[in-house]
Amino acid sequence: MIYFDNAATTWPKPRAVTEAVKRSLSDPFGNPGRGSHKAAASAAKTVYELREEAAELFGADPLNVVLTSSATQGLNFAIKGAARKGCTILFSDLEHNSVRRPVLSLRDSGYCHTDIYGSHGGDNERIISDLIAKIEPGNCVVVANYASNVCNLTLPVSQIGEICKKTGSVFIVDASQSAGHFNVDVEKMNISVLCMPGHKGLYGPMGTGLMVFSKSAAESISSFSTLIEGGSGVDSEDTGMPSVLPERFEPGTVNAHGAAGLLAGIQWVKRTGTARIRKNENRLWLDLYERTSCSDRITVYGDGTPGAIFPFNIKGVPPSEVGRLLDEKGICVRTGLHCSPLAHKTLGTGEDGAVRISFGFFNTLRETEEAADRILKIAKQ
Amino acid sequence: MIYFDNAATTWPKPRAVTEAVKRSLSDPFGNPGRGSHKAAASAAKTVYELREEAAELFGADPLNVVLTSSATQGLNFAIKGAARKGCTILFSDLEHNSVRRPVLSLRDSGYCHTDIYGSHGGDNERIISDLIAKIEPGNCVVVANYASNVCNLTLPVSQIGEICKKTGSVFIVDASQSAGHFNVDVEKMNISVLCMPGHKGLYGPMGTGLMVFSKSAAESISSFSTLIEGGSGVDSEDTGMPSVLPERFEPGTVNAHGAAGLLAGIQWVKRTGTARIRKNENRLWLDLYERTSCSDRITVYGDGTPGAIFPFNIKGVPPSEVGRLLDEKGICVRTGLHCSPLAHKTLGTGEDGAVRISFGFFNTLRETEEAADRILKIAKQ
Repeated sequence: MIYFDNAATTWPKPRAVTEAVKRSLSDPFGNPGRGSHKAAASAAKTVYELREEAAELFGADPLNVVLTSSATQGLNFAIKGAARKGCTILFSDLEHNSVRRPVLSLRDSGYCHTDIYGSHGGDNERIISDLIAKIEPGNCVVVANYASNVCNLTLPVSQIGEICKKTGSVFIVDASQSAGHFNVDVEKMNISVLCMPGHKGLYGPMGTGLMVFSKSAAESISSFSTLIEGGSGVDSEDTGMPSVLPERFEPGTVNAHGAAGLLAGIQWVKRTGTARIRKNENRLWLDLYERTSCSDRITVYGDGTPGAIFPFNIKGVPPSEVGRLLDEKGICVRTGLHCSPLAHKTLGTGEDGAVRISFGFFNTLRETEEAADRILKIAKQ
Repeated sequence: MIYFDNAATTWPKPRAVTEAVKRSLSDPFGNPGRGSHKAAASAAKTVYELREEAAELFGADPLNVVLTSSATQGLNFAIKGAARKGCTILFSDLEHNSVRRPVLSLRDSGYCHTDIYGSHGGDNERIISDLIAKIEPGNCVVVANYASNVCNLTLPVSQIGEICKKTGSVFIVDASQSAGHFNVDVEKMNISVLCMPGHKGLYGPMGTGLMVFSKSAAESISSFSTLIEGGSGVDSEDTGMPSVLPERFEPGTVNAHGAAGLLAGIQWVKRTGTARIRKNENRLWLDLYERTSCSDRITVYGDGTPGAIFPFNIKGVPPSEVGRLLDEKGICVRTGLHCSPLAHKTLGTGEDGAVRISFGFFNTLRETEEAADRILKIAKQ
């Protein structure tokens, strides 16, 4: 089997991830933050170590790292938490449905206004001038997809962060496809809330995610409304969630087993290094691109930047059929709209979307060679 | 170590649970519902088997079983999804903060009214007449904690369900402490939405939970608003979540590894049998009660019904101190308010709450004997 669907979830996981999760299920491991006995303390220690490792990776304080069940949950918490009645939410034309749908739900309920700024094929100057034209100082939430899940386009997060800082806007970054691939620093990039899944570029298990708050966002955390309330282990008599991080956004029992795995995943990413991870992805992308460029029936989307995502179509063959033919040979890809109709529209892939190959660290040139052969055969049929 | 904190999370987990999670991390296991290749299909098959097993256990259709990350998430989805502007939400005086807080947040935002019906020490006639006096036909959401997390009181869910059916009320049941302990059937009990964690009485991993919808609730699912929106794998171009179950309430990637473990947990519960599980809990409760009843310094809360929860206080010793002294001898309990200030107030435990011993299937009489010895020693000091 050739697993080329790492943008959906990375596979295989590093052995340390599997072992950590297994240990959390077989060793004494209680409910973290719900009791002070040895088993609960063991789980709480793991959760805190995860906060520390993530904090170091993303330039934040450990207590400003919140465990979520997915990037989707984090993005909903951040967007709906930051939105004020009558504000405008600006998001890019590369956003995933995990941003587009919550934002549109706020718009459709009449709670706030929305507008879209363009990614302009990766032309940063145009992106920034587009954003500046639309931003309303002191009344905006800006959301940016650091790296698309449909192509290798990235948004100039640092520059957007500067504008958000200058205009007093809340800045939320979707790092679903960039965490573990690129360096992200919430302070240096002026990001208010960074949201990511644990099971993609951080090589943790599905069911995990993180929200990372900047110092200034954390200081005004009580201005972020909560979306889900529940037990917090502290201040139980209060009618609302605590006004401190991480408790405010961790209602109920956290996925402590997932946290054990994600901790091991982040440690693996740190040991491996994002530069080395990206280098491998780029090498695979370039190899596949070169091998398939001989066919004029194959269109590869994006601006030609190599990276983890290789989106393409074969003329005359629907993406789902290409996916089926690849799966027949044990090559796992994802076809269609990838929950990102906006990005597909921006790229002009058509109503059936595209075929997406997405690389992980464990993929090899032998695999891109085999996939290229198969893709060229399908294109020739 | 004696683990007596099973109401927080059960431990140990059955070996099959650990093995299933481990396999889901080491074997090819993609993102379920996000691709049709072999790895994604393997995960999707596991998730569907979980729906089938849970559906059979709770009298529902597999597609009306929704995977959540916790009971808290499910209860928020259900309560806020069912609430209509101006409606009244009725909840009992035994509710956990996972119900109390979301309901009060709706009240505090002026969205709806709330009222509390009493548990009246387990007097079902009084509970029902209290509820009938407060219910407003056609405009109510009723929430009931089947079994408390602070004592062994249960609410007469079948009778409440009948009233909800007659009055056209949405009926949401928190089965956090009853799933796996008692038989629950959404159709027979007229429950609209049943919410539960996976990591307590179902012996699955933390980070899992289920919402189980009745047929009639599922038929009117588009009248349930969504709280979190994101990728759904289907109908990606729509601005909102799909109007079908389970997709409507499963935004983003589900915890598929957790699902593998929860599937094994539910299968273990079925093989073991809820009657046998309850019999063991009752036996342990009665043993501990008898052994400690010789001391008039020990107060056990509740109506004397044996069960999984043994809440007590020792006169003159704060619960946290009792917990610390028990932990010194390797006995794991949880002290304080257990995220249920309302239930503690109802039981009259005092502002420091109580010590809670909570049994699981793997606890033994040798353990209750040892704990009783220790508790009596603390009481004598």
